[in-house]
Amino acid sequence: MKRLMECVPNFSEGRDEALVEKIIDEARKIEGITILDYSSDKDHNRTVLTMIGSPEKIKEAAINTARKAAELIDMSKHEGAHPRMGATDVIPFTPVSNVTIAECIEAAKEVGAELGSWGIPVYLYEDACTKEDRRNLASVRKGQYEGFFEKIKDENWKPDFGPQEMNAKSGATAVGARVPLVAFNINLDTPNVEIADKIAKKVRHLGGGLRYVKAIGLKLEERNQTQVSMNLVNYEKSAVYQAFEMVKMEARRYGVNVVGSEVIGTIPMKALLDVAEYYLQIENFGMDQILEKRLLDEQ
Amino acid sequence: MKRLMECVPNFSEGRDEALVEKIIDEARKIEGITILDYSSDKDHNRTVLTMIGSPEKIKEAAINTARKAAELIDMSKHEGAHPRMGATDVIPFTPVSNVTIAECIEAAKEVGAELGSWGIPVYLYEDACTKEDRRNLASVRKGQYEGFFEKIKDENWKPDFGPQEMNAKSGATAVGARVPLVAFNINLDTPNVEIADKIAKKVRHLGGGLRYVKAIGLKLEERNQTQVSMNLVNYEKSAVYQAFEMVKMEARRYGVNVVGSEVIGTIPMKALLDVAEYYLQIENFGMDQILEKRLLDEQ
Repeated sequence: MKRLMECVPNFSEGRDEALVEKIIDEARKIEGITILDYSSDKDHNRTVLTMIGSPEKIKEAAINTARKAAELIDMSKHEGAHPRMGATDVIPFTPVSNVTIAECIEAAKEVGAELGSWGIPVYLYEDACTKEDRRNLASVRKGQYEGFFEKIKDENWKPDFGPQEMNAKSGATAVGARVPLVAFNINLDTPNVEIADKIAKKVRHLGGGLRYVKAIGLKLEERNQTQVSMNLVNYEKSAVYQAFEMVKMEARRYGVNVVGSEVIGTIPMKALLDVAEYYLQIENFGMDQILEKRLLDEQ
Repeated sequence: MKRLMECVPNFSEGRDEALVEKIIDEARKIEGITILDYSSDKDHNRTVLTMIGSPEKIKEAAINTARKAAELIDMSKHEGAHPRMGATDVIPFTPVSNVTIAECIEAAKEVGAELGSWGIPVYLYEDACTKEDRRNLASVRKGQYEGFFEKIKDENWKPDFGPQEMNAKSGATAVGARVPLVAFNINLDTPNVEIADKIAKKVRHLGGGLRYVKAIGLKLEERNQTQVSMNLVNYEKSAVYQAFEMVKMEARRYGVNVVGSEVIGTIPMKALLDVAEYYLQIENFGMDQILEKRLLDEQ
């Protein structure tokens, strides 16, 4: 049975294409690694790599690309619009197939320990965090590269791995684990953004709604409609159909209708299969009944 | 982009395990072929092989396994409960990923021509058929191996490939193309099988219902319930959600409720994603937004 993990490391170089290629080559070289995407942003001066492979191979790819980034990128000369603290800025691991979040946390710790052994301060974040105030990446990265020379002296910001001393060339790195995020928007037949916002507030965790749902109301100028724009940060716990039905339920109060929805970017197969299972009231469905799932597993 | 076709050849040997292994080995040998399943039935004296691969590889595997079956199986000595007419009895091709039904028809013709060149009479069936009365496998196979010595003399049963003369050792083979079949059952809270049957008749093509749906009513003794048991022979044209909603609609007439449903065996991912897309009213969804689909494509 094929086991797959996703890793999306972010590197602090988005202008020097030849340099970026050398980093990506470290992943390309490893047989069994599928590179789904990589893109560089010149303003951000940052490259995001999306790759998938077995837990063993993906750890190897994460380590080798980070090693190359540590060799080639000098953070003391880095400028860019995107917040960053290290040459390899963040390394998140995500379960894709037949892998648990616990194994992703394990991967984050192994890779973190390796980078630490090179003299790079490493912070574990999201589901791999060792303290609650390190769960959120933004709070870990606060102060950025320049601020870390001071921040790291604070005992509360002692790294999980590596020295309690800033690495001037490579900066610091956040290594984490998280379940895949689903970006799901629902369009409403009202042009009144206040209504969309009220619905969003009722559906999201912050307002007493679903635990793993973040939501805001937006105006869709061209369509003369509005939207409840959501992030489902754990679709296995707070499901897509629950978010959809809760928006419909709240919309009813205003005589507003749902006219459509959209999935932004990629979504795990299971997040949508759960929807089909719910509406069709399927009993005892197993993911191995999906032809493509079996194919991925048995290859 | 990875292109995948499924082929499920049926061989007329289910008792001699060593012989069956020699046939399966011909598929195993080919790199890039995934064998999802194979199982032999001693009463039927028959083996069903399910394999997936690129169009080129799957044709090669179909030809090589059929060649081995022609070498090792002697139909003049075959006995078994399942209807059959040849050593390789049927070879259906099915699209799985990035392949059209037209390409499956093409594959059926190529493989059929090859078997014909060995002196085996070949009939194209289902979507590959050259005459409407050859579409249905049962009508092609009618008379079975024993009856074919006479049947083949009829001009109406002149083979599509190979001689118009029965092959005593290898029999005749049906080679076809079809879209994947979805077996989908809906459970009702009534013990009255007449109601289930009336609903089935209203939903199925034969009774004026959905074009690509076959349905019957069944009693579920242990649960004291009934079931509308369906085969969706083209889920892209007559969708799972349509069948589901039509059963609910008809059940209403009798005050009967749907208590659950079940998917039997494997189902293509897209058949269930279409369901999620319908109920969530998703706009502009693309299959390449599914992480696993991209993974299969880019491997």
